[in-house]
Amino acid sequence: MRLFTVGPVACYPEVLVEMSRQMYSHRSDEYKRMHSETVELLQNLIETENSVFLFSSTGSGFMEAAVRNCVQKKILCCVNGSFGKRFAQVAASNGKQVEVINAPLGQPIIPDVLDDTLLKLPEIEAVAITHNETSVGLINPLSDLADVVNKHGKLLFVDAVSSMGGTELKVDDWGLDICFSSSQKCFGVPPGLGMGSVSDEALKKAEKVTNRGWYFDFKLWERYQKSAGTPMTSVVPQIAGLNRILKLIAEWGGKHRYFELYKERNQKIQSGIISLGLSLFPQEGYESPTVTCANAPANVNGASIYELMRLKGFELAKGYGDVRETTFRIGNMGYILISDIESMLETLEVCLSEITV
Amino acid sequence: MRLFTVGPVACYPEVLVEMSRQMYSHRSDEYKRMHSETVELLQNLIETENSVFLFSSTGSGFMEAAVRNCVQKKILCCVNGSFGKRFAQVAASNGKQVEVINAPLGQPIIPDVLDDTLLKLPEIEAVAITHNETSVGLINPLSDLADVVNKHGKLLFVDAVSSMGGTELKVDDWGLDICFSSSQKCFGVPPGLGMGSVSDEALKKAEKVTNRGWYFDFKLWERYQKSAGTPMTSVVPQIAGLNRILKLIAEWGGKHRYFELYKERNQKIQSGIISLGLSLFPQEGYESPTVTCANAPANVNGASIYELMRLKGFELAKGYGDVRETTFRIGNMGYILISDIESMLETLEVCLSEITV
Repeated sequence: MRLFTVGPVACYPEVLVEMSRQMYSHRSDEYKRMHSETVELLQNLIETENSVFLFSSTGSGFMEAAVRNCVQKKILCCVNGSFGKRFAQVAASNGKQVEVINAPLGQPIIPDVLDDTLLKLPEIEAVAITHNETSVGLINPLSDLADVVNKHGKLLFVDAVSSMGGTELKVDDWGLDICFSSSQKCFGVPPGLGMGSVSDEALKKAEKVTNRGWYFDFKLWERYQKSAGTPMTSVVPQIAGLNRILKLIAEWGGKHRYFELYKERNQKIQSGIISLGLSLFPQEGYESPTVTCANAPANVNGASIYELMRLKGFELAKGYGDVRETTFRIGNMGYILISDIESMLETLEVCLSEITV
Repeated sequence: MRLFTVGPVACYPEVLVEMSRQMYSHRSDEYKRMHSETVELLQNLIETENSVFLFSSTGSGFMEAAVRNCVQKKILCCVNGSFGKRFAQVAASNGKQVEVINAPLGQPIIPDVLDDTLLKLPEIEAVAITHNETSVGLINPLSDLADVVNKHGKLLFVDAVSSMGGTELKVDDWGLDICFSSSQKCFGVPPGLGMGSVSDEALKKAEKVTNRGWYFDFKLWERYQKSAGTPMTSVVPQIAGLNRILKLIAEWGGKHRYFELYKERNQKIQSGIISLGLSLFPQEGYESPTVTCANAPANVNGASIYELMRLKGFELAKGYGDVRETTFRIGNMGYILISDIESMLETLEVCLSEITV
């Protein structure tokens, strides 16, 4: 089965070798060296000097951490898909008041709308933005949105789960206070590790927020991080896997070369889709570089394309949330060869002809 | 390096093979089959019909879940070591009022003391007990303590992190409302997976508790569990590893044979320690079946034994918490052969003679 999933995605063979190594203590010197090195590699990748934590959780754990540590009362969530919705749900479940900007599905969050909203809601403490909305294959204009948030002096939380590693993130330049991702997306590592950067300002805010809990308490993590450790047992295999891919990215020519590879693969997928007579779901100019969301042909359920492709050896992803039936998705994350894209598109052509006959 | 750690412990070769398999979607039918099967195998191992959740976290995540879901105001924590202390810290960090029973280090929690305390504190909603206190190598008399808790009609939370899989747990017979563990202890699987059972009564209580959060919300987990899923991405490799070892335990003659193996190995370690002229830290009769905590010889720092053993190819564990300097520990969890125990003891004899000369 060739994987074009949206997470867990196909892992690099070199990463899978790391996953199978015998365990050792997360308090050993060997572990501490690997931990520090991974943190530094990640800081370099996302261009930040902020603290980077390696959570024993998925990316959604980092989402819960952001709202629990750095919002006392009120947060503004920008929602244009299922994962923006999740951020709002997580905040509400943690007892925070949530204001929402909803953009129509398939359309980006508009900086001017964010600006107006923040003008009207001065009591907002933080803004949550989904960088790449996996559910509809759309990328939001993050650096423009970040400018607005910073102009208003609010904290900015970025869900970069399906963008980190696959496209540029300039955490310090853009002023992202919290920017998190998961192992199982663009890094091509199995799931179980949530990692993210936390700014000094966010850490200072956390000091004043009550009821931060224990498992995701940034102040506790900050203390352990000083000695390259974690409050609870670290997810050693996934951290070793992440360490390996970050080094491979360097060997392959550095992060910009890796982002270029994503662009190339993505272009191949998206132009292939269009030449098959299909259209893309998101507004033009905002197509995600890591997940293609395609409209199913009229009167065809997107899930049936998924099912048929599976029978032929290709695992794509079903539509998600409100566009579950009318779309299907093709992931461009992790271990995917250009030749796999070609055979996937050929197979898709066959499937479409079988379905629409 | 041969591992006698207290977690992460040495993993079974068969488990490491599972860890290296290519990923697939946690929403696929294949995953759902594996998930359901793992839940059933675990229910059988700990003798329960309660819901079993497979958390994308370590065991400490389940600790946070227990207090956050099932305590509105007040919990009683039984503390005779560092992990009992952690339970109390986690509860306090989550805004709960915490009452504590402290037993002197190395001594068990006494059922009569628990009974008296519960008589005096009728407002207690739940009692937390560390089954096997990894930090001092002591096992608490769980079924007797559970009788007391049940007599008082309180919820019972059991940290079985370093006992589940290594010794008997009769969740339904003993009336344990929440009983959790981690992948990286007696199961010989890498860290990153926290799993536990939750009784109907605990789930009913959760309905009434406010501010349960999202990541560890039992009610949300219950909903996803119905279709063999998890609210966030599952830790697929570690679940596959757990699935494998649970099937291996069956192949090797069933759980009672596996618990016998732990007893045999433990007896070998503990009688070996004594024949080297050392003594065990915990009160006689309460020595843990999975972790031996030995007193270092007079004027010898336990950590120096750890360091010297490491140089000779054996990773034991340092003392922990308040007895960090005066003890050292030998784990008996995961993939350990009888012949490894023999060579470890021989090497320990050499180390002791070098240190005490």
